[in-house]
Amino acid sequence: MDYYIDRLERTAIPAMRKLLDAFRTAQRPIVHLAIGSAYQDLRDCPQRFREWTRNLERAAGIEDLWWTGNPDYSFREEVAPLEGETVIRKTTQGAFNGSEIQNVLDRMGVKNLILTGVVTSCCVETTARDAADRGFGCVMVSDACADCDQGMHDAALKNFGLYFGRVAESADDVIQALAAGSRI
Amino acid sequence: MDYYIDRLERTAIPAMRKLLDAFRTAQRPIVHLAIGSAYQDLRDCPQRFREWTRNLERAAGIEDLWWTGNPDYSFREEVAPLEGETVIRKTTQGAFNGSEIQNVLDRMGVKNLILTGVVTSCCVETTARDAADRGFGCVMVSDACADCDQGMHDAALKNFGLYFGRVAESADDVIQALAAGSRI
Amino acid sequence: MDYYIDRLERTAIPAMRKLLDAFRTAQRPIVHLAIGSAYQDLRDCPQRFREWTRNLERAAGIEDLWWTGNPDYSFREEVAPLEGETVIRKTTQGAFNGSEIQNVLDRMGVKNLILTGVVTSCCVETTARDAADRGFGCVMVSDACADCDQGMHDAALKNFGLYFGRVAESADDVIQALAAGSRI
Amino acid sequence: MDYYIDRLERTAIPAMRKLLDAFRTAQRPIVHLAIGSAYQDLRDCPQRFREWTRNLERAAGIEDLWWTGNPDYSFREEVAPLEGETVIRKTTQGAFNGSEIQNVLDRMGVKNLILTGVVTSCCVETTARDAADRGFGCVMVSDACADCDQGMHDAALKNFGLYFGRVAESADDVIQALAAGSRI
Repeated sequence: MDYYIDRLERTAIPAMRKLLDAFRTAQRPIVHLAIGSAYQDLRDCPQRFREWTRNLERAAGIEDLWWTGNPDYSFREEVAPLEGETVIRKTTQGAFNGSEIQNVLDRMGVKNLILTGVVTSCCVETTARDAADRGFGCVMVSDACADCDQGMHDAALKNFGLYFGRVAESADDVIQALAAGSRI
Repeated sequence: MDYYIDRLERTAIPAMRKLLDAFRTAQRPIVHLAIGSAYQDLRDCPQRFREWTRNLERAAGIEDLWWTGNPDYSFREEVAPLEGETVIRKTTQGAFNGSEIQNVLDRMGVKNLILTGVVTSCCVETTARDAADRGFGCVMVSDACADCDQGMHDAALKNFGLYFGRVAESADDVIQALAAGSRI
Repeated sequence: MDYYIDRLERTAIPAMRKLLDAFRTAQRPIVHLAIGSAYQDLRDCPQRFREWTRNLERAAGIEDLWWTGNPDYSFREEVAPLEGETVIRKTTQGAFNGSEIQNVLDRMGVKNLILTGVVTSCCVETTARDAADRGFGCVMVSDACADCDQGMHDAALKNFGLYFGRVAESADDVIQALAAGSRI
Repeated sequence: MDYYIDRLERTAIPAMRKLLDAFRTAQRPIVHLAIGSAYQDLRDCPQRFREWTRNLERAAGIEDLWWTGNPDYSFREEVAPLEGETVIRKTTQGAFNGSEIQNVLDRMGVKNLILTGVVTSCCVETTARDAADRGFGCVMVSDACADCDQGMHDAALKNFGLYFGRVAESADDVIQALAAGSRI
């Protein structure tokens, strides 16, 4: 866990925040995705994911990790949505399998995605692969993602770049490319 | 509108309420569906439906009809969800086209649906047809639905019974059949 | 059945054919949709639809109505696909519930649909409603559709025009509007 | 490529064949999945995948790799479908993003999947992740999959076991578990 916490705090959250700032300044659309169920019993999560979550909760000594009614359930302040930004709750690891993201993106007219988040090789990569398969142009941003070990992070990005889309090394690279109007 | 209001107040809402009471007593799952967008600009609704809604709002002299942030947005008290019941917001007329209903029903293990609501020939019928096509056993309950005229109500139910599923005349018929353990 | 056969032969098929000719001349994309299963046991159709089909087959004295392996399974010659045209087999009444139509249209870049076919109030209307809910601009063409009775045909088109999209009276109206570059 | 070809010929295809034989003997359902488009222009594939395919074709000196009309397009004889077995063509890497697999599995009553194929970290893993997210119980079979390098194969299976489902070392392990009626 030390690797993950360090990566998250020192690298991924600051990079995500840089991208948020740049997108807000440029008035580009931002979509915040988070696992979240309106039900304490997680009835809208797949059974496997429900069991996996209960195991994780027991191991971590916390309760109701994804329940939006949990008073401790919230976005990290650094990357929290501003009023009016789009927020999608998902009940699965891949967002396209358990949220309205396809409809929301289609109706907002979004065709290309810059993807960040945790953990790289699970929620982010699964969502990015499905987005690419469904026709979105996708860029995963390496320093704005965090994983539980470096090997899994690297394998996920290698795979994504080979088969599904593009990989940017850093939020800075993305911001410079967007500012220059060039292809990322 | 007189026909619709009368049908809704005197027939459909009392029938829906009877079904809710019976399902609550029998501890059968209840899913409340309502059009609702988290965004005042209805960004997650299809453009056509957004325009249709704005026209309807102008004609009716009301604003933000589907915006869940509208202080007047609420369920009718008679048919409001109780704490712990499942509530799904949809952004389209057919629920399967703009909500997580498929995932939620699948994960709850629901295989058969008793459908009620307004208006019969639009939101209810479209949702019921898609449910039937996706493998749910479906019953539309005539007196627990309301439409803008009797002819459209009748045509919707005739069509549904011919091609998609079953039609029950009344909430009472459904409740008796469930109590008797017989097929509706 | 007399009404249906007469409507189909004298009105709907000639109107469909006019539209096909006009779209072919204008080199606009054409998508042919037909119920069809690769399996004699209809394993990829919903159970309800399988049973409904077997009843229909018994009543009509024919076998393997939707099985693409049936030597008699074919398009009517007047409206048959030409080589290179897009053909989608569906296993449900609404095409969006049992075919790859959403993916195919998205990948072809199609945004608007002119819909024709049989029967108006079932396969055509269900497909048209779902298309409208999913953001396609849709026109149902009255004389290029046929139903089992006139009342159901009329109710379907009234409903569609009120809630989902536009209704054109005839193939000729559509062809003139397209030629004039005007909105249908 | 040497690693891949060797892995495919000596390990993966023989293991897939063992599983096919065992499933045929036990009369368990078999679903064959293959990338395949009915159109030479790959119009029903996502644009990105179309371009990726054309690059691959140029590099490999072959044409119309996924076109089902190509006379050389076929299943490897060792793992070819027998008459009556279910065959699904997909137009994307993840099967749930570009085929009717969800409908077909649902209508066949399938709840659990044993997954094999190529390449492990792309088509197989993406399909397996989406299947798990959609509620299927999933087992990836290591020796019945092949990838372009061992590291990517291992990373895919590690990831899948951590987050999505179960990993079996070999076809033999699966066959023994099924024979014993035990959980794999």
